[in-house]
Amino acid sequence: MKAWTNKNWGPEYTVDKTLNDVTADEYDALVLPGGVINPDKLRTNDEAVRFVKDFFDQGKPVAAICHGPQTLINADVVNGRKLTSVKAISQDLINAGANWVDEEVVVDEGLVTSRTPEDLPAFNKKLVEEIKEGIHV
Amino acid sequence: MKAWTNKNWGPEYTVDKTLNDVTADEYDALVLPGGVINPDKLRTNDEAVRFVKDFFDQGKPVAAICHGPQTLINADVVNGRKLTSVKAISQDLINAGANWVDEEVVVDEGLVTSRTPEDLPAFNKKLVEEIKEGIHV
Repeated sequence: MKAWTNKNWGPEYTVDKTLNDVTADEYDALVLPGGVINPDKLRTNDEAVRFVKDFFDQGKPVAAICHGPQTLINADVVNGRKLTSVKAISQDLINAGANWVDEEVVVDEGLVTSRTPEDLPAFNKKLVEEIKEGIHV
Repeated sequence: MKAWTNKNWGPEYTVDKTLNDVTADEYDALVLPGGVINPDKLRTNDEAVRFVKDFFDQGKPVAAICHGPQTLINADVVNGRKLTSVKAISQDLINAGANWVDEEVVVDEGLVTSRTPEDLPAFNKKLVEEIKEGIHV
């Protein structure tokens, strides 16, 4: 059994702020984790979708992995973007106008995407690069 | 807690046949149940997607509830069809060309869809109607 299917998710973190407490202005970048259930809920929360969209409107890096890009569909920000995701949602991203490719990590003007937890090393590396570029601009 | 969120799924059934054993010719109708994980796997199985598509090609009733319609997206059978689903995947169905509506049950020429387990009584009633109509034709 692979590490990411046996609930060995690593350390737990306490939520420090909720959507009501924050705006995109206060952050340098956004990471949308995956999981089958998490993005499925997040994409139905209009306030969360608006928060995600704000990062794109402000040109800040956004990273999404596995099912994370589902929320990007509802934020209406994938049309014309090159990206990847877990295979199960590839057709949904294509139908939303994305140029979907099967690669371990894709960077398209600040949008960093990967497919599965196995891609995490490449995903994290590119995400850090994008954040550093953003901060130095 | 609602009955359908506390794992009280009712009786379990043993799988009697797998995809390798069957063709759509042998059945009068197809039911695609929901769940967040089940259709997410099913839609990536090309043989399963082909099996689903065969029911549409043969004009047989197909019923899908909750996340069940995700597999219909991959079978490329929702374009121009009126249907419903769990809210989380509504944008994916719209992007695939469906006329998505928020109703407890929708019937469109043999395609029966509902949103959540709370819609099951209406869903089951319409499904039975469609099967009976199909058999008597």
